[in-house]
Amino acid sequence: MRLRDWPLCCGTWLLVMVVAAVPQALADPLPTWRDGAAKTAIMDFVARVTDPEGRDFVPVAERIAVFDNDGTLWSEQPVYFQVLFAMDRVRAMAAQDPSFADTPALKAAVAGDWQALFTDHGKPMGAVLNATHGEITVEEFQKRAGQWLREADHPDTGRPYDQMVYQPMLELLRYLRDEGFSTYIVSGGGLHFIRAYADGTYGIPPQQVIGSTTQERFELVEGVPQVIKEEGVFFINDKGGKPVGIDRHIGRRPIFAAGNSDGDLEMLQWTTAGQGPRFAMIVHHDDGAREWAYDRDSKIGRLDKAMDLAPEEGWLLVSMKDDWTQIFPWGNR
Amino acid sequence: MRLRDWPLCCGTWLLVMVVAAVPQALADPLPTWRDGAAKTAIMDFVARVTDPEGRDFVPVAERIAVFDNDGTLWSEQPVYFQVLFAMDRVRAMAAQDPSFADTPALKAAVAGDWQALFTDHGKPMGAVLNATHGEITVEEFQKRAGQWLREADHPDTGRPYDQMVYQPMLELLRYLRDEGFSTYIVSGGGLHFIRAYADGTYGIPPQQVIGSTTQERFELVEGVPQVIKEEGVFFINDKGGKPVGIDRHIGRRPIFAAGNSDGDLEMLQWTTAGQGPRFAMIVHHDDGAREWAYDRDSKIGRLDKAMDLAPEEGWLLVSMKDDWTQIFPWGNR
Repeated sequence: MRLRDWPLCCGTWLLVMVVAAVPQALADPLPTWRDGAAKTAIMDFVARVTDPEGRDFVPVAERIAVFDNDGTLWSEQPVYFQVLFAMDRVRAMAAQDPSFADTPALKAAVAGDWQALFTDHGKPMGAVLNATHGEITVEEFQKRAGQWLREADHPDTGRPYDQMVYQPMLELLRYLRDEGFSTYIVSGGGLHFIRAYADGTYGIPPQQVIGSTTQERFELVEGVPQVIKEEGVFFINDKGGKPVGIDRHIGRRPIFAAGNSDGDLEMLQWTTAGQGPRFAMIVHHDDGAREWAYDRDSKIGRLDKAMDLAPEEGWLLVSMKDDWTQIFPWGNR
Repeated sequence: MRLRDWPLCCGTWLLVMVVAAVPQALADPLPTWRDGAAKTAIMDFVARVTDPEGRDFVPVAERIAVFDNDGTLWSEQPVYFQVLFAMDRVRAMAAQDPSFADTPALKAAVAGDWQALFTDHGKPMGAVLNATHGEITVEEFQKRAGQWLREADHPDTGRPYDQMVYQPMLELLRYLRDEGFSTYIVSGGGLHFIRAYADGTYGIPPQQVIGSTTQERFELVEGVPQVIKEEGVFFINDKGGKPVGIDRHIGRRPIFAAGNSDGDLEMLQWTTAGQGPRFAMIVHHDDGAREWAYDRDSKIGRLDKAMDLAPEEGWLLVSMKDDWTQIFPWGNR
């Protein structure tokens, strides 16, 4: 290159950089969110807290966003997927060794007898969870859960469970991260079950998953250090447990929270009661055609009290039917 | 500027940038670590795992470094500082309201009767911890702890407790972060007590502190959502609890661990049993002149079994006397 070519060279590069930046700046970060009040509310909030000149600016370290999982980031019908995993797991273990299903609870699981499993305050179901989630190393459990999530098919859509996630929420997670937010899952579901797919599917690394947990112990097994999941519950990260789980794991109050049921109520309250700008949203399952329609009377993901509180609390109620142009990454149910 | 000035301009800037980069590249990241085997071992490990061309390269997401706190990042003599905080707190509360110290345990605390506090398997001390750590909002507790850490004086050095930190370890934390590591505290001490100063003093944000915890509850207090610390232990993050705490909070096995006592043994085992390059170190308190000298026979921070295992496990034993040129940011004891 001759010296007199430099200015042209620099000018050309400048042009290339500007052109390359334009699509990025104009691109819609939430393409499957229909233009309207919900999308505008989200984007206005993000614009406010990320404007360094604005009075509502929030430093990156404090841009904490928390998301419920079941019913908020992926489907939860006909029943929480982790329960279906436990049922499949019992059947697989019984197929290998029939003596495994030697109790009424495990026999009911093999037979698919839901009614029996949820009698006696759900104690038989608890036994099924213990048998499938206890006395197994964390490593082995996550391997099995991950395989099931990729390979087993949802009974209604025939899709693998890790594809039953909501495309608009994937976009929202990514959009918030692009704007400097740290995105956390705060779920009543099992910590290790969610970790088995959260990084690959949601882009949420294991240290940003907060969930319910079994007891665990450290043990040298034939000289090899192992962390082993045990039978029995250590912590239920649901309802009032969500703000507690957030405190223990994050230690900062979120500024953005998303849920879909009364199990998220306390998390939304905790988030929006903080000083400064706060945002809370509820995913409303009102799309029986493309997903499922349920709220006040549902056994799974009941949304009742939180829906009543939403207007006075200023929480955004997101209509899956009206606010989303598409439900799943592969289309609709 | 005329166009023909450009090449000179660019060349000058290039020179400025190179000159500015030299001190950075040559600067010693661990200035209070004496040149020798310990410092070399640490820096060699970091060079290996951060060399993108090397066979031991570790991606940034997996560069997890865990640090015990008491005796590893700051002093723990004459007794764990959190215990001194609890004692001071009882005295302050009793001074405001004499009826507060209405039990033998709290009376013993006011009188500074250590022997009474540690009889009966330490139950009186447990009562002191309950009275000072329970039934208080997390926010208020951390405010009080932070104030004490900044304002109360260590009985031996007369320095505020948040200055009783080890300068060489501050440098190590910063060095590892500069090299793409995430630094975590994994302590038997209290989560909220440590969070009260960890971000400001160590540069470790609240979500990277793992510690022991009291029970907690969420509650609307006069309509205001609160997370409240309760009496009673929820989890002891010590010994075998450390790998469990690491699993629950991080979900990835660390590649670097630092401790100083047998309470860290399982964390060091868990760390170094992983595949690929791993590093573990033990801070040995062998400097009675500049800090304190204790190991096998100490009630606080006993180092016995882990010291025996260190040679065969390949764990680095760091001599505070020989490997550190300075102990505290302000000098030595």
